Amino acid sequence: MPLGNGIKVRFGQRLRELRRARGLSQEELPFRAGLHRTYVSSAERGQRNVALVNLEKLSNALEIDIADLFRDMSTGT
Amino acid sequence: MPLGNGIKVRFGQRLRELRRARGLSQEELPFRAGLHRTYVSSAERGQRNVALVNLEKLSNALEIDIADLFRDMSTGT
Repeated sequence: MPLGNGIKVRFGQRLRELRRARGLSQEELPFRAGLHRTYVSSAERGQRNVALVNLEKLSNALEIDIADLFRDMSTGT
Repeated sequence: MPLGNGIKVRFGQRLRELRRARGLSQEELPFRAGLHRTYVSSAERGQRNVALVNLEKLSNALEIDIADLFRDMSTGT
């Protein structure tokens, strides 16, 4: 898996898992995070190079540490 | 600390700690990561909203998991 795209895809999968594990819909998580619905859905599809400020918003909305956004993430190998 | 800037500053401090703990200079880390020297130094000063692709490059260069970039980070509180 090429460096660069892999991380966006793996992060998106992890984000979707975390959202579902908390029983949040694709509308509720963006609302809580103060982000646009289409932004979060494209992030879940691995199409966004999500940066620190939005990583913090997402982790706050999920009530986890930022490090936990990356825990148990598929290694892509 | 306002949401948004705090995370960039805390991440920058953590990045500098990790680089120094590995005995890497401000030239060696960017070289290993394939990033520009001035980009990494401004990230260490909390001036960059570093995104997934570059987080992966930095963690690879530091030989740690991405999650570890955010571990033991100052809470800013």
